This record gives sequence, structure tokens and C-alpha cells, in this order.
Amino acid sequence: MPLPAHIAPGEGQFLLDGSFGVVLEGYTDSRLLRAKQRFLDRLARETGIPLQSAAQASQPSFIIVTAGASDPVQQLGEDESYHLKITSSHVQLMAANPLGVLHGLQTFLQMVRITPQGFSVPAVAIDDQPRFPWRGLMIDAGRHFMPVPVIERNLDGMEAVKLNVFHWHLSEDQGFRVESKQFPLLQEKGSGGQYYTQKQIGEVIEYARDRGIRVVPEFDMPCHTSSWLAGYPQLASGSGPYQPQTRWGIFDPAMDPTRESTYQFIDKFLGEMTALFPDAYFHIGGDECNGKEWDANPRIQAYMKAHGFPNNAALQSYFTGRVQKLVASHHKIMEGWDEVLQPDTPRDVVIQSWRGPEALAAAARKGNRALLSAGYYIDLNQSAAQHYLADPLAGDGAVLTAEQKVRVLGGEATMWSEFVTPENIDSRIWPRTAAIAERLWSPQETRDVGSMYQRLAIVSRKLESCGLEHQTSTNFMLRRMSGEDDPQALRVLAAVVQPPEGYAREELKEYFTSTPLNRLVDAVPPESETARHFSDLAKLIAAAQASPQQLQEARNWLVLWRDNDAKLRPTLEGSEITGELIPVSRGLSQVAMIGLQALDDLQLHRRLDAATFQKNLQLLEAAAKPEAVLLNKIAPSVQLFVQAAGPQ
Amino acid sequence: MPLPAHIAPGEGQFLLDGSFGVVLEGYTDSRLLRAKQRFLDRLARETGIPLQSAAQASQPSFIIVTAGASDPVQQLGEDESYHLKITSSHVQLMAANPLGVLHGLQTFLQMVRITPQGFSVPAVAIDDQPRFPWRGLMIDAGRHFMPVPVIERNLDGMEAVKLNVFHWHLSEDQGFRVESKQFPLLQEKGSGGQYYTQKQIGEVIEYARDRGIRVVPEFDMPCHTSSWLAGYPQLASGSGPYQPQTRWGIFDPAMDPTRESTYQFIDKFLGEMTALFPDAYFHIGGDECNGKEWDANPRIQAYMKAHGFPNNAALQSYFTGRVQKLVASHHKIMEGWDEVLQPDTPRDVVIQSWRGPEALAAAARKGNRALLSAGYYIDLNQSAAQHYLADPLAGDGAVLTAEQKVRVLGGEATMWSEFVTPENIDSRIWPRTAAIAERLWSPQETRDVGSMYQRLAIVSRKLESCGLEHQTSTNFMLRRMSGEDDPQALRVLAAVVQPPEGYAREELKEYFTSTPLNRLVDAVPPESETARHFSDLAKLIAAAQASPQQLQEARNWLVLWRDNDAKLRPTLEGSEITGELIPVSRGLSQVAMIGLQALDDLQLHRRLDAATFQKNLQLLEAAAKPEAVLLNKIAPSVQLFVQAAGPQ
Repeated sequence: MPLPAHIAPGEGQFLLDGSFGVVLEGYTDSRLLRAKQRFLDRLARETGIPLQSAAQASQPSFIIVTAGASDPVQQLGEDESYHLKITSSHVQLMAANPLGVLHGLQTFLQMVRITPQGFSVPAVAIDDQPRFPWRGLMIDAGRHFMPVPVIERNLDGMEAVKLNVFHWHLSEDQGFRVESKQFPLLQEKGSGGQYYTQKQIGEVIEYARDRGIRVVPEFDMPCHTSSWLAGYPQLASGSGPYQPQTRWGIFDPAMDPTRESTYQFIDKFLGEMTALFPDAYFHIGGDECNGKEWDANPRIQAYMKAHGFPNNAALQSYFTGRVQKLVASHHKIMEGWDEVLQPDTPRDVVIQSWRGPEALAAAARKGNRALLSAGYYIDLNQSAAQHYLADPLAGDGAVLTAEQKVRVLGGEATMWSEFVTPENIDSRIWPRTAAIAERLWSPQETRDVGSMYQRLAIVSRKLESCGLEHQTSTNFMLRRMSGEDDPQALRVLAAVVQPPEGYAREELKEYFTSTPLNRLVDAVPPESETARHFSDLAKLIAAAQASPQQLQEARNWLVLWRDNDAKLRPTLEGSEITGELIPVSRGLSQVAMIGLQALDDLQLHRRLDAATFQKNLQLLEAAAKPEAVLLNKIAPSVQLFVQAAGPQ
Repeated sequence: MPLPAHIAPGEGQFLLDGSFGVVLEGYTDSRLLRAKQRFLDRLARETGIPLQSAAQASQPSFIIVTAGASDPVQQLGEDESYHLKITSSHVQLMAANPLGVLHGLQTFLQMVRITPQGFSVPAVAIDDQPRFPWRGLMIDAGRHFMPVPVIERNLDGMEAVKLNVFHWHLSEDQGFRVESKQFPLLQEKGSGGQYYTQKQIGEVIEYARDRGIRVVPEFDMPCHTSSWLAGYPQLASGSGPYQPQTRWGIFDPAMDPTRESTYQFIDKFLGEMTALFPDAYFHIGGDECNGKEWDANPRIQAYMKAHGFPNNAALQSYFTGRVQKLVASHHKIMEGWDEVLQPDTPRDVVIQSWRGPEALAAAARKGNRALLSAGYYIDLNQSAAQHYLADPLAGDGAVLTAEQKVRVLGGEATMWSEFVTPENIDSRIWPRTAAIAERLWSPQETRDVGSMYQRLAIVSRKLESCGLEHQTSTNFMLRRMSGEDDPQALRVLAAVVQPPEGYAREELKEYFTSTPLNRLVDAVPPESETARHFSDLAKLIAAAQASPQQLQEARNWLVLWRDNDAKLRPTLEGSEITGELIPVSRGLSQVAMIGLQALDDLQLHRRLDAATFQKNLQLLEAAAKPEAVLLNKIAPSVQLFVQAAGPQ
């Protein structure tokens, strides 16, 4: 995962043992040498066989042939293809440049599995290249700061699924996260001490480059800038003073687009930051201006009148145009969110579409290149399937001309960080982002959701051995909130609840940047595997297509859930954090009882009377509503039973 | 854990929330500031409450008062005491110097737990100081190299249980692990590329100092030196050529004690290494010389005759004496294993006793200071209880005079690394070393094994949140060997088997340094919690003192084990690594069947006939023998049932 473009199965399998060795032929450089070492380290970890020392002594059976170098700074659209041939005795990996080698090594690693003969990889011939050249993951380090180790382990995860752009969202209303030597008050007043030094930035860029990943920085302007204005209120449209925001939402502070000093600041700032980030693209944000500070400032209103700007969008468009020229003067290509696309936006500006496929298609039609993020908002707790089926060239994208389609560069998963910390961010990004990675790499017709979920489960485990913590963090947090070493009953509950989708969470409670994110809603994955599996069972049962084994399995689950509340109750009462789960646990038990009753009815061909039917449906509806910011994901499946057993 | 010297419980509890803050009063330095930050980070991790940012804004409720500085280089015997007073509203930690502060912070962290009111610490007043001044953990980085992150996370674990000496075993027959600039062939020919740079050594020493831990290096000589001789064969007593050893055991290569050039080399080497390691003590090993190279070298034999050395021990004693003078000339105090103690050994040489309490007491009587490692060999897969009850001042130590007793400095757990890798070393060190730490810190009369095990389980979990991997590594390895995401049946088996104690493993199979250590024996902890618990049950049942609930629990366990083989079989057959477990799993099932039968007999007051009794005992005896280098730890408990139900 992502599934390669072309696979031809071979005969037999290639066995891995202590004699395994790798040799580099053709072009080599230090990045390839490091990649080889990391590959051996990963293989050693995946097998428990100490390959490093053995590799020096023995006959190498894995040959890597690289035709030539890749660009000194990785470019959009560079050749990423590779050819991987595995026989029972040898492996050959060929690529035009190191980028293809990196991808091919990951493909090999994903195929390693234990067999009765030992660790092995099936014989196969693979010809592979990506469908889109821009396959990204954005991490918002502005709202919750994410230390370098968090970024690095996620870069490892990106490499594993062949993503090639790390979009680093570095400034927000809540925090400015990069050391500026030109404007040190940015980090001093805007970060609460939580920022990346320029040295760290350089190390992350090197780390990413080693993994075939470009780093595109984003400094969001003119809005989402409260943290800048804390140190430099002279940039603001209002009168200040300003502080980094301590809540979530859209805020009024905005840069003043009408003063030349604003552009002088930005020019100097861009000079420093474009030197720090070598990538050809530079993201200036540009989203979500509410314009209130502009409306309230008579000087700005006068300026707009004098220059004939009919509204705030026109004012922002003027700002964007000025900034774009500054970005270009520093030899970078500007990127921005949907809002920066205006009638006079230069053609080379890349549009990142958060609003939807229509906006993406509109940009492509207008002649701009664009990438899709709508559909890939992994902070919204949607299913892997939903993300998987969002295609940059579906819907409005499907009717673009061939020339326009080429302007659709790919997409980016976006990890906004209102509700993630260094502790649980992995569980929000992974494994679902692997499904997005497949969408962006594999042929468009690769769309089998069942196959995706099967492979996703395997990839999820492999991602943990890359150092990601999306599975272990859940366990750790359950132990912490319960105070128990092995909180089995809490795990049973945790396995069937989910955070609500979309933006529901903020509406359920007010949050501060310092609010602890240590509750069950923060610990559980965004998508319940157990509930998905039970839902599949429920559909079969409701359609009277289930086997006796499947009926029994459903019954076993329901009994487990029915009886769990009594076991869990003492735990829940023992901890201030889990106290809010008492009704959630009771609700699960009640839902399970209704489900068992409905199963009985179905199996005995009894029909519910209308009154009980209605009562049960109401109970299930109530149980499906958020409680402790969690959804009971079994209730909708039980609803299927009740409806199937309902009055005719 | 370790249990403090004096505890006076108070009223109520101190609640931890986002307003928590820490202030340093009295003496401060950068180490204390870092300790405070690490304390806040740990607390944030233990609670999920973001303390760092909140702490800046609020009223500090935790006051640390430090009277003065500690020595620039931590000295043996420095004051480590602290006074910790916790009320429902405030915490005060007082100490003579930063060492006591470090210990007091760890005591506080261990007491944090979740309650219905939130995370809290019980009100208490603690006066605490260590029983022994030398409380160590030795890690053998020679046989299997242990990268810096492994060392650092174990230093975190040491800090958590107040150990204060990291004994770094840096050279072995299998590898020389330190960069020498004077003699670069040591690492170039002796390490296979796996060694610590001097920069890394310095960083580890700093890391340890920040945690109140001294770093004592060991360079074992004149034997265990094959890896030195690979680069410098002129030091050898034989004719070479030499290579680092690739198997385990005791080898012939030894330095030549008869040539002046040997001492010139050692002098220069000591000059470099004593400058690198600031601690006042320097360990020169000195153990396990088989003398074969000396016997075989006529020149050495002639020298011995000429100088009147009656045997190899005398020759080694001469060598040790020369080296001791060199060590002293570099202003260090020499430490060595038992063997270096000879009639003319200077009084200031510290003896590390691996042979037993007699050797320890002999050293103390002779006037040398000494520490105990016999009884603390954590590579030997003994129980925490065994280590816990080994006391430096028991047995021969108990009859020492008061003056002699003062010479007993403490002890060290020794992690020899034949059978550990960076992956599973934590599971061999932890949590058992916490029991040793308590022995060395807490009053001698603290000896309640039941209380120790209860507290050990809690500490074990806390150690994981320090970053140790003793629990997660087992899970990871079980998943890897089975290829399953959730290998439940394998976990059932894994929970009741143990590696054999002592040196049995090497006798069961020949190992190379490159032999994969990825089998079940490498994955399971040295001590089975489940088997220990079942054994307690079995003793009650055999003594006819079990409650009906306990009888039912025993029965449930036996049913689980009886039925597990059928579930586990397909997994075992699917993997080359687990194939060897087929008889182990079958054996568990058979033992459980015998146990269930015996339980029935006991409950129905049936008596076994003599023939069945004998047959069952034989089956159990066979089942208790190592299979796949694993012991079935249920068999001995079932034996108790069978014997209780046996013929009268």
C-alpha cells in the first residue's frame, strides 16, 4: 500500500536470513548509502535477524541499480518510478534516480512476512510510478506544537506509504513556531517557548530529503496571525495589544494590507524564510479572513475607497498580489488556500483546495495548478473509506480537459491540531493517511474498499514498527485514565466508540489551548474497527443472509457488550477522567440488550409490536447521540436488527 | 519503590491540575532547572495535563528548597537525603544538595495516581536516605552493542528507582566499544563498526549526571581482550592473528603481563580514558583468565620462573599490581572483579564480588571496600524475589564488624549481554532491577516479598512511561514471530513459560554473536507473573485452604490452557520461528488436563491409584524440562495438585 501500478506475480519466494546483503550499483551517493542502512535496520527490526553485521560478510542477493542522480533540491514532477524484480534467489531494484530506489525499498519492506520457511517476500515483478506528483501530508504545528521527534516519525510514516510532500503549517493565531533572526519577537512573544530553531528546521529538511520528501513551509497571512502581532503589533489592522489566542476558532486580527511597512516586513521575513526552506514552493496561507479589523479601521476603509476595492475580498486579493510578487522576487512559487484564487491571480500560483472539488476544478480551468485537500481533512474523524474514495479527478474534476487535468497536481491530507497533542497525533494521521496515499499514488481504478481495509490493517502494524505510536498511544492513555495495568473492560468500550465527525466537538464544549486532551475521546482511533466489522455482520443479518456462525458471532459480541457495563463500572467510578463514561457504558449495555432481543425475534420469526418497536428505536436514537463527546457506533447496527424485526 | 526510610502518612491528598507549578528556592543551578523541566514533562505525561505552559502563569504549589551545591563530579558517599512533605495544598521538597532533590522528585512521581477527584498524591511526610552509597546497574555493551538511546532510557529507569552508578562494561572478547584516538585500531578492528564516539560518551556522562548517576567505565583486562588484540596483537601472549570472538564463553587470548610494552600501552590508554570518564573510580575487570596462552608461551613461562611466580594467579596478580599503579598515577581508584583481590592488593582497590557473599566479606575483612553482584545477575532469569532477598550484609556479611561493614559499599545488578539485544534488554533489566534498587536503598528490614511484588507491578508501568520498553517489546516480538496483529493464543502460552535459569541456555544450543534472538524465549519476561500467581493458588489448593472462588479461578486457568493448544496450533505452524513451540503448547495443554483431573479428584475426595499417580508425575516431570529453551512454569504447580490427590 499504495498498490503498485503493475504487478506480475512470480514463482516461489525469496527467503531472508542472516546472509542477506545489499549492493548498490550504478550511480551512488551518501543518501543512497544511508537509505541502504535504514533499509537493513528496518529489515532487522521486522525480522529480528541481525543483518547489519552479517551483510558485510556475505554474498549480496539484493542488487540496487540507480541510473543517475536526482535534483539537488527535490523537484515537483521528478521521476519517482522503479522496477522491482524478486525471484526465489535474487532481488533487483532499478530506478532512474534515488527517489525510485527509496520507493522500491518501501515496497519490498511491505511484502516481508513470516512463513513456515522463515521471513520471506513473494516472487514478483513490479513496475511502479505515481499517478500524481504531489502527495502530501500537512501537519499544523501552530495550534499544538509538535516537537521534532513527532515530525520525524511521521516523515518515516510518509516514506513508508510514498508520500512526497510534507506541508509544515508553521504559524497560527495560537502560535508562531519558527525561530526568526530578523524578527525574534515572532518566536519570543508568539510561541510560549515552543518553536523550532533554524538548526532543527534544517535537520528536518535533511531528514525529509533522505526519505524522498519535499518540505513546503506555510506562513499563513494576512489572517490567522494573532501570534505574529503579539511581537509586531505595527503589522496589525487593529490597535492591539495582541496575544497568541488561547481558544480555537476564527479570530479578527489581521495584517494591514494598506501600509507599505507591512510589505517591507513581509519582504524581509520572506528573505529569511525562503533561504531556510530550499523547496521551490512557498505557502502563504490566505484562508479564513473575517475582515472585521478591516471594517473597523477608518484608515483602511478610506484606502479601500480611494483604490476602488469594493469589498474585503478585493482588499485581500490586492494583498495576495503584492505578497505573490515578493515571493516571486525570492525565486519561489507561491501556494495558497482557495481564497487566494482571484481573477487576476498569476498562473503559476498553486491553489490548495479546502473548499471542495468545484474550487479545485475552477482553479484548473482558470489555468492554475491545484491540489485537493477537501476530502482529506483527517482531523474530522471520517472513515478511511471516505478519504479513500475522494478523488482529485472525480466530480467536477472528471469533466476537465486533458490539459486541465494535468494541472491537478494531487492532494494533501491535512492534520489540523485543535484536538491533537504529540501524544495522540499519530492515531489521527495513521493508518487512514495510508489510504489517501494510495488514492494519490495508485491507478484511479484502484477503488476496492474491502481490499483497502484488509491491506490497511497490515500497513498499520508495519507503521508502528517505523516508530509511529498510533496503536500504543491508545493503550497508554487507557491505562493512564483508568489507573489499571490491563483495563480490559475499558478496552471493550473504547473499541466501539468514536469521536463525532466534522466540527461537532467544539460545539459540545469550550476548549482552551491548555485543556487536557486525555479523555477517552482523545484516546480512541477516529474509526472503530470493531464497529465496522459488526456493521458488516449486521447488514448481513438484517438482509437475512448471515450464516449460523455469523449469527453466533454477532450474539457473542452483544453478550460481551451487555455484560461489560457491570465489569467496567468500578473502574469508571475510580477516576475523575472516566467518570463521564458511566452513561456511555450503560448505553452500550442497553443497546446490546435491545440487539439481543431483536436477534432472538429475528431467529424465532417473531414480530415486534409497534409500541416496543418505537420505544426501541427511540432508545437507539438517543444512544446514538454524542455522550462524553463520543458516539456509540454499535447503535446504528442494532437499529438494523430492530428494523428488520419490526412490525411489517 | 524503593520504600523510603521513614514515612508518616498525612490527611487528604494533593490534587494535580493545570495550575500546578514548581519553584526552586535556595541554591539553584542549570541541572536543577533541567530536573524541574523533566519533572514537569513526566508529570504531564503521567496525567495528560499540559503543565509546561500552565506552570508559567500560575501560583506555584510545589516548593523545592536546596541547601547547596553537590560536587562538580559526583562522589561516592555524597549526601543523597531528602525531606518531602505533601499536604492537601502544598508540597515541599528539601535537600542538602541537588542529588536529594532528584530522588525526592522521583518519590513524588511514583505516588501520582488517578482518583475520583483527579490525579493526586496522598498527603505524607517522608524522610529518606539510602542504606548503601553504591547502587549500580552494569550493562555489558561488549557482547551485544547497545546504542546510546538504549543506554539513555535505562539511565531514566535507574533515576526512577534511585540507582546512582552506571557501570559501563565497554570491552569484551566480542567487541571493543569506545573510540580511542590514541589507539584507533581498537574500534576499527575490534568493534565491527559498533562503538561509542568520545562525543557520545561525553553526552551519556552528562545525561547520567543530570540524573544523579555516576558513570564507571570498565575495560576488562588482561583477559576478555580478543577484540583489543585484533588491532594490537603485540599486546598478546599468543601469536595471533586475533579477531573479535563470534561465540560466547571464556577464551584463551590474554595480554602479555611480562612485557614492558604492554604497560606502556595501558598507561597511554588509561591516560586517554581516565580523561574521558570523570568518575573517581575506574574498573579494570580482571576476571576469568584461563591462563592457556600463558601456559603455552615459553618466554612467559621463563619469566614466571625468573620472577618466582608459582602460578598464573600470581602472574595475574603482578599484572594487576602494575595496572593498579598506573590507574593511581592517573588519579583514579581502581575497581576490579573478585580475582584482583590478592594478599598484596592495595587497600583502596574496590572489589566487585561476582563469586558470592564469602568473597565480599573476605575483601571487607582484608580492609578493601567491596560491592556485591553475586545474587544480582539479572541475566540469569531468576525471580525478583531471589534478587530482592540477596543482601550484601547477610550470610558472611552479617558477621562482619561494624568497621568492616562500612566497607561494604552496596551492590550492582549486572546485565551481561550474551542473550540480549537492544530490542529485549529492557525486559531483562526491568522491572526486576527495581527490587534490587530497593534492597540497596531501603532499610535492611524491608523484606516483605508480597509487598515488593505488589509495588513492583505499579513501578513496572511507571517505568514504561519513562520510555523503557520492557512490556511493549514482548508484544512487538510476539506479533512479529506470529505474523498476527493480535496473537491472543500465543500470548496465553507466552504468559506461562520462562527461559531457564542460570547458564542452561548455552548448553542447549550453540550460539553465535549473529544468532537471531527473536524466539519466544527472547520475548517473554524472565519471570512469569501468571505462573507466580497460579503457584500461589496451587499452594492454597494443595493445602486445602483455597476458597471456592480460588478453586474456580484455578479451574478457569486450567481450562484456558487446556483449550489453548487447538487455537494456537495454526499460528505455530504458520511461522518458522514458532514451529519449535508446537510441543511446548501441546505440553501446556496436557499439563492442564492433568491438573483439571487432579482438581476434580481433590474436590470429590477421590484418590488416584498408584499407577496413574506415577504416570502423571512422570508426565509432569517431562513437561517441566526445557523445550525450545523454555520452561513450562505451570507444571510444578500442577504437580502440587497431583501430589495432594495422590495415593495416601
